[in-house]
Amino acid sequence: MMDAVVTSSRALDRGLPAELGESLKALLDRRFSVAAADREHHGRGESYHATRAPDAVCYVESTEEIAAIVRLCAAFRIPVIAFGAGTSLEGHVGAVHGGVCIDMSRMNAILAVRPEDLDVTVQAGVTRQQLNTHLRDAGLFFPIDPGGESTIGGMAATRASGTNAVRYGTMRENVISLTAVTADGEIVRTSRRARKSSAGYDLTRLLVGSEGTLAIITEVTLRLYGIPEAVSAAVCAFSTIDDAVSLVVAVIQCGIPVARVELLDTTTVQAVNRFSKLGLKEAPTLFFEFHGTEAGVREQAGTVKALGADFGALDFTAASDADSRNRLWKARHDTHYAVQSLRPSAKIWSTDVCVPISALAPCIHETQADIAGASFPISMVGHVGDGNFHLGLVIDPANERELTEAAAINDRLVRRALALDGTCTGEHGVGTGKIKFMRLEHGPAVEMMKKVKRALDPLNILNPGKVLPEE
Amino acid sequence: MMDAVVTSSRALDRGLPAELGESLKALLDRRFSVAAADREHHGRGESYHATRAPDAVCYVESTEEIAAIVRLCAAFRIPVIAFGAGTSLEGHVGAVHGGVCIDMSRMNAILAVRPEDLDVTVQAGVTRQQLNTHLRDAGLFFPIDPGGESTIGGMAATRASGTNAVRYGTMRENVISLTAVTADGEIVRTSRRARKSSAGYDLTRLLVGSEGTLAIITEVTLRLYGIPEAVSAAVCAFSTIDDAVSLVVAVIQCGIPVARVELLDTTTVQAVNRFSKLGLKEAPTLFFEFHGTEAGVREQAGTVKALGADFGALDFTAASDADSRNRLWKARHDTHYAVQSLRPSAKIWSTDVCVPISALAPCIHETQADIAGASFPISMVGHVGDGNFHLGLVIDPANERELTEAAAINDRLVRRALALDGTCTGEHGVGTGKIKFMRLEHGPAVEMMKKVKRALDPLNILNPGKVLPEE
Repeated sequence: MMDAVVTSSRALDRGLPAELGESLKALLDRRFSVAAADREHHGRGESYHATRAPDAVCYVESTEEIAAIVRLCAAFRIPVIAFGAGTSLEGHVGAVHGGVCIDMSRMNAILAVRPEDLDVTVQAGVTRQQLNTHLRDAGLFFPIDPGGESTIGGMAATRASGTNAVRYGTMRENVISLTAVTADGEIVRTSRRARKSSAGYDLTRLLVGSEGTLAIITEVTLRLYGIPEAVSAAVCAFSTIDDAVSLVVAVIQCGIPVARVELLDTTTVQAVNRFSKLGLKEAPTLFFEFHGTEAGVREQAGTVKALGADFGALDFTAASDADSRNRLWKARHDTHYAVQSLRPSAKIWSTDVCVPISALAPCIHETQADIAGASFPISMVGHVGDGNFHLGLVIDPANERELTEAAAINDRLVRRALALDGTCTGEHGVGTGKIKFMRLEHGPAVEMMKKVKRALDPLNILNPGKVLPEE
Repeated sequence: MMDAVVTSSRALDRGLPAELGESLKALLDRRFSVAAADREHHGRGESYHATRAPDAVCYVESTEEIAAIVRLCAAFRIPVIAFGAGTSLEGHVGAVHGGVCIDMSRMNAILAVRPEDLDVTVQAGVTRQQLNTHLRDAGLFFPIDPGGESTIGGMAATRASGTNAVRYGTMRENVISLTAVTADGEIVRTSRRARKSSAGYDLTRLLVGSEGTLAIITEVTLRLYGIPEAVSAAVCAFSTIDDAVSLVVAVIQCGIPVARVELLDTTTVQAVNRFSKLGLKEAPTLFFEFHGTEAGVREQAGTVKALGADFGALDFTAASDADSRNRLWKARHDTHYAVQSLRPSAKIWSTDVCVPISALAPCIHETQADIAGASFPISMVGHVGDGNFHLGLVIDPANERELTEAAAINDRLVRRALALDGTCTGEHGVGTGKIKFMRLEHGPAVEMMKKVKRALDPLNILNPGKVLPEE
């Protein structure tokens, strides 16, 4: 019986009931839209997934408005899909069963910065760049940095991370509390602002990474960090990817608290040189960043440089002035677009496995052999300190043969990572793209997840068709 | 209807059905006990709560045995309560609706240490001391250190922390993956071993802190850390608690990565001097510990010492040799017993609020005024770097008047902390003792928790009567 509830949303894919449309229009006036361009824009993320346009778009301005919309949609059993900045890579925002999109972009207020507690509360539509610009004068920053101009709400919903996770953790570790709207339109706060608590179930962590399927995140309280007294960066080229990865594994195992360590393969370095006008040596390359006191940063960089020599580093170029550091990391963040520009009108299919660090070298090694004969360009970049790396498959999404080849490469890669006790997605999320791997990765734990979903969203109106297999 | 399920366990408090007893005896032979002494021992933790003996005790040796026991108990709708070392402080192990206790002490195998991945997998009955003894030769340690000889399973179930949390986090941040038995006797693994993942709902964090009410934790994979190259400690006395707290707030806000910073009030220092034969100055005192490289530790200690002078520190005594450090921290861990020894046959009622760090000074200040006229001794110790502190109310648990007075002090303290956006429990958990504060702290989010509980344990057989209000 319960299963019938979860699958029943298919029956709901029937356009927007006129009465619901009228109620939403009455609530939002010109902030309610059924224009084709609006709907198209809100039915796609980045990456290769096809657009699945919602039936309407609501430009909300408050948590209370979202609660009212969810109550209306619940009454009509119509899906509700939260939309941040549309930077998702796995089809998270596509309206696979139709429904109403809630656009969060107007909910972009920074509600409270508390330097004394090193935390901040923001509305879900605030972007990470907006937040860091706001914080700079207070000497604070928020470290989680996925590519793209992502919103904090979207980052929480997908359990995002980025280049700083090796030192600062992911959204899992850095969300203190959430305000959210439940499937029956109640407003809840998941936790108090204390740094730790043993008071009941960890609803914060349950919603972080739930991709809008258990509740809609409307406000987020985040941990902040003081801008380090000293920051330095270094670039280090290698003859082989194996050498680069071996150095990273040694650095992590020695407990050196690197803030960032990113791997770019030769293809990516070439793309970055062209796109961002850099003159990097075109070889497998590590970007390092060190945070701490002046003395601490010098000590870290010195230790890594010494280790690098043991692992066949070809050079070790320090970049301690802010300008060259910023150019370097801007280029790193633009790799997605740099790689996409390798081929006109191409899209990137980005893989996202993450494995225990001891398994990283064999996983990358086998993967390199596997992709050697691919019919399209493939880049590799990695948050290698976490065991996470991405292949960028530069495909023409209109070409069926290429889509099939890309899917097969990803399939083999995911199975390889799972065999090494890794995960199919380190930071991009499941969306629609990785549902097929959920049982393979989690086995009977998928049934536990489905029970939680049914309990918190019995009508299956919250972003249906995402995260969990529907059968 | 659903509510009826949750409250129906009261009807089940009817002793052990003979047929269930025979089945459990057939499964476990002499590892199944209904002896009064066994039952009494398994119905109490530490602290002031009355004993609630289970109807039988099962000494299990494997996850599969636990699954079999849960399936049998589910068939008879009899509660199942996991028991680690009995060090809980909030009545977590009491059989408030009767039922079968699962004693985990024989499940004490360390299954795999992986130095290259800085992780370990243990059975839930391994104690933290056993684990650290085992790890020492590999140069590794596990930092979470609640008082008492706790088991890793119990620590995961209560989301425990301790003195190292300010640097290393709590069980929330340090559990990578769990093996658990669900309410229908299925064995699940909550996550792969990769350091980060966005693959579906965070079942690991959902079970950490669920106190055996959503599943029974049987194996735990934990993060490990390299034993720091250098460690140093320092003791620092103050004229007033306010001065001590102000220094801690400044240290945290400056981002100095202290490994530990603990506050002891004068009463506690006196008790510790007597119990652990130390000669500390009898004044409000901070214990610090610093981890890092030789240079890093020197730098941290120097910065704290300099700040201390600004905040009226009376002295700053470094203890960098391992022997004096160990004596100091052993004494800190024994404060519970030291304070208990202040009064013959007394028990400690330990409060556990945690507030944002900016609220710590006012919260402690108001609390001191509130307890000034108490009729029994009260100690105060705090993991002040996290905003968490404990009053030790040294009461005679047979004295109704003292119990009432203690409950009133705790009640006022919790309301004070909640008004400051804090929590009723930083690390001890809810058990039976703090259920009455759950709605006050979480509001409508309690209903979300209840939905999750009903979904994962529809018969309400997993440690019923804990964490959530039953009405």
